[in-house]
Amino acid sequence: MKPYVPASPELATKIADVLSYTADGLVPAIAQQNLEDGNGGEVLMMAWMNKDAVVETLTTGRVCYYSRSRSKLWRKGETSGQVQTLVDFRWDCDQDTVLMLVDQKGVACHTGRRNCFYNAVRDGEIKSIAKVEVSLDDLYG
Amino acid sequence: MKPYVPASPELATKIADVLSYTADGLVPAIAQQNLEDGNGGEVLMMAWMNKDAVVETLTTGRVCYYSRSRSKLWRKGETSGQVQTLVDFRWDCDQDTVLMLVDQKGVACHTGRRNCFYNAVRDGEIKSIAKVEVSLDDLYG
Repeated sequence: MKPYVPASPELATKIADVLSYTADGLVPAIAQQNLEDGNGGEVLMMAWMNKDAVVETLTTGRVCYYSRSRSKLWRKGETSGQVQTLVDFRWDCDQDTVLMLVDQKGVACHTGRRNCFYNAVRDGEIKSIAKVEVSLDDLYG
Repeated sequence: MKPYVPASPELATKIADVLSYTADGLVPAIAQQNLEDGNGGEVLMMAWMNKDAVVETLTTGRVCYYSRSRSKLWRKGETSGQVQTLVDFRWDCDQDTVLMLVDQKGVACHTGRRNCFYNAVRDGEIKSIAKVEVSLDDLYG
């Protein structure tokens, strides 16, 4: 993929207006690591965006979610430094889910793992299948 | 990845009980094409599961969602034949999103495209970036 070209406020608003939001004004957004051949690799996380987060992400090229627990825009990496740089912004047939190809700096998960999907079954037991790569001290000081 | 080993009803229920559901009793589930090296490739779709759909998927190894529009279990491919065979079932740090590695037969999207995320911006315009591979007649005849 070519590097992302930030959208104009007009185009970003047009895209934000195309999307369907929940009654709470949110749309689920999946972040997937971009690979050099332009294909997506590891699914890093899923979080939520409101219309303002969609517009900010598209105009800046830095991924911004909406934090449901803090009820405000969540500029990914603003505390931890683990930012997501947008490579491609896509949405689905029903306009109600976003898929972003991104370049993830460091780790996506707040537990210090590279991605959030580390729970799985191995040998009949629920196991963590990914290691903590960055300590919480290093992430949040 | 090794082929999926269907879970016992006890293990499936244990996993279903670990997950967090919305007020409507649903959890978002992302389907990603499994690759031979065990890594995930293309993100195919995102849909929703209720607890019964989670248990059925885990015990049968065939992906079953919950259709919000039809208010019933949706055995992916039951009409179109485009089934998803489970390879690995994972969930995230907050237990509120599922990621499944699957083998997708044919196309995942009801529009006949391989995946649902075909809307994107190219040259400043909203474009469809994927071709229809199977006609709607062939899918739903």
